Amino acid sequence: MDLLILGIGELVTPKGSAAQAGRAQRELVVLRNAYVAIRGGRIAAIGQGRCPSFSGPVLDCAGRCVTPGLVDPHTHAVFAGNRVQEFLARARGEKYTGGGIFTTVRATRAASEEELVQLAKPRLLRMLAQGVTTVEVKSGYGLSLADELKILRAIRRLSETLPMALVPTFMGAHAFPPEVGRDEYVRLLVEEMLPVVAKDGLARFCDVFCDRGFYTVEEARRILEAARRLGLGLKVHADELAYVGAAELAADLRATSAEHLLHVSEEGIQALARGGTVAVLLPGTAFLLDEPYPPARRLIEAGVPVALGTDFNPGSCPLASLPFIMSLAVLKLGMTAEEVLTAVTLNAAASLNLAQEIGSVEAGKRADLVVWDVRAFEEIPYWMGQNLVWAVIKDGSLVIFPPDK
Amino acid sequence: MDLLILGIGELVTPKGSAAQAGRAQRELVVLRNAYVAIRGGRIAAIGQGRCPSFSGPVLDCAGRCVTPGLVDPHTHAVFAGNRVQEFLARARGEKYTGGGIFTTVRATRAASEEELVQLAKPRLLRMLAQGVTTVEVKSGYGLSLADELKILRAIRRLSETLPMALVPTFMGAHAFPPEVGRDEYVRLLVEEMLPVVAKDGLARFCDVFCDRGFYTVEEARRILEAARRLGLGLKVHADELAYVGAAELAADLRATSAEHLLHVSEEGIQALARGGTVAVLLPGTAFLLDEPYPPARRLIEAGVPVALGTDFNPGSCPLASLPFIMSLAVLKLGMTAEEVLTAVTLNAAASLNLAQEIGSVEAGKRADLVVWDVRAFEEIPYWMGQNLVWAVIKDGSLVIFPPDK
Repeated sequence: MDLLILGIGELVTPKGSAAQAGRAQRELVVLRNAYVAIRGGRIAAIGQGRCPSFSGPVLDCAGRCVTPGLVDPHTHAVFAGNRVQEFLARARGEKYTGGGIFTTVRATRAASEEELVQLAKPRLLRMLAQGVTTVEVKSGYGLSLADELKILRAIRRLSETLPMALVPTFMGAHAFPPEVGRDEYVRLLVEEMLPVVAKDGLARFCDVFCDRGFYTVEEARRILEAARRLGLGLKVHADELAYVGAAELAADLRATSAEHLLHVSEEGIQALARGGTVAVLLPGTAFLLDEPYPPARRLIEAGVPVALGTDFNPGSCPLASLPFIMSLAVLKLGMTAEEVLTAVTLNAAASLNLAQEIGSVEAGKRADLVVWDVRAFEEIPYWMGQNLVWAVIKDGSLVIFPPDK
Repeated sequence: MDLLILGIGELVTPKGSAAQAGRAQRELVVLRNAYVAIRGGRIAAIGQGRCPSFSGPVLDCAGRCVTPGLVDPHTHAVFAGNRVQEFLARARGEKYTGGGIFTTVRATRAASEEELVQLAKPRLLRMLAQGVTTVEVKSGYGLSLADELKILRAIRRLSETLPMALVPTFMGAHAFPPEVGRDEYVRLLVEEMLPVVAKDGLARFCDVFCDRGFYTVEEARRILEAARRLGLGLKVHADELAYVGAAELAADLRATSAEHLLHVSEEGIQALARGGTVAVLLPGTAFLLDEPYPPARRLIEAGVPVALGTDFNPGSCPLASLPFIMSLAVLKLGMTAEEVLTAVTLNAAASLNLAQEIGSVEAGKRADLVVWDVRAFEEIPYWMGQNLVWAVIKDGSLVIFPPDK
């Protein structure tokens, strides 16, 4: 065996290998006085009380709480530069229009792949230190074939070097580049960029910013259908700035996820529920932009599985703490602590088509676990602004060590 | 010399030995390519360019940004138990009335001094890890002579063992204990508790919760005047839940600070400005309770010096991150990055009568410094939910080491 984790005061996890909706997303398994045995990077056995005799390495949690490794299903973590001046200007009362994205496009185009890797590394390691073992990262600050490939290669290199899993998403359709006509850029995306990205296996998903001032529903459909033909999973930045029917599009295409949804319609919610599409909610952005929060309760009550992410990016959300997002979801979205834990583990995994591999503590799944320096999992969203992580295990290896080890 | 800090990309500090008001709280000193020499725990010299030859220990910041150590001027960090259930209930829509304080009083009374020390230690160390070198800590969960003394002794022991400065405040007037009549408790505070606290030197300040449902202006005046006669500095929890004229009382008594001020009147603001009382604003509490934010701009424009604190406590604000409060002040209070840095350094020091000793990087002051892993100080409130601290120096000693050392 790789590792035996014992003395777990409270082992808390959702259950299953698919997104949980409705009541199920509140139904956690809670095992007291538990242990987890790990073999070959996967969970071999889970039990309570006396644990099997074992000669390998042991981690004694001394009554602390264990959850699955957190999954951040929506970030734009690879970029150059920052947007401090835009942040301060917005705080003085200027409105966010999404236009500042070109500040980051210019800086990212000017950076080398190596520079992008070095800039992103400390950001991602700070996420890992807060218990995040899997992070989705979108491209989209290149907006040209060469620059988008550079970002996706940086994500691949980060994934190979950091002790965490990165899930790459191609988001060339994040904005329109200034130097190419709109129709021509959509053609480039469909006919030139997507085929190269898919052939090189540089992305698992394709995402499109389908919103007012960005891609229309028709443009988004054309790009996403091309991506589907190439074997990529589908995601949609849907109805964030205004209602445009993007959630309905996501459901119609059987997209894996629809993200943001601040202005989703009642029809959009019903369509997502029927299609089994995961709603990825990003309340950090609403908090930062003083926008209305996404309608988490309406989505949950309609039977849509809800995941939560940071949306970490240099413009609308330079906020990289998934535990803080958990607090925000309790405080401002009216989600229960149980729904929140499911949203950042199993449902977030499902939004990345990974619910069979990660997102819960169950025999056979990857051994991605967080030991928290608390006695009960409800304390995780409660103690805010303090890093409560005591240890992190990724694929069976200790990657964040207890402070006293 | 104790330590030479060189390679500082940007040394940023307010200036002076008293609270800054008006324009002055935006006027920071910014020195590029700077060094700081430390001798005997104090700042010996500050300069730019080539630094003096030196044989002792050297910390090379490699272009990073340095600020004064942060000062958190308002916490209730010593307590037992937690209020997770109250936090979750409030998130479901139940209103905060302050009544839950007795949950913490019961748990704190049941705990020993040693238990209080062990519970508070990791909380305070997590604050230090975020750059906070001085923390005010209030008693007030004891509400009896023995229990209040137990809390103050725990604060003294923590102060002796942790590499940070704690400033103790006696706040027996935090609520009314259920087992004693109201008038009798005020008499106990004035005639029995305050004299013992003052004689044993267990507190530097006395604070009273002067608000609707808590201490009246008359009761607060009686307690604070007794504290003043015993040589304690004065603080007032003022007009948080409703306007009661507490800010006017604070100004009239020449209190060092008035805290919260969510419902301060225009007359109260003018009185604070005339009296030179520091306004300690606690936007974390407003954020958590969905209350209106304190009127920072009106206070600043009226000439009141503004400080910012966490209000870290298990009820209304289990949020312990002063850098997060800095972000909140930019985002929700309309404060500039310069005003915010002054508010968590020099003005916070002034609210503890410590502006002659700490709160700015100037020759002669204590060598309390933070090295941040950023190039410009405006990035500190911008990058949210990530710990940007690279190193912390307290009284000239490295207490948080760079990650690669």
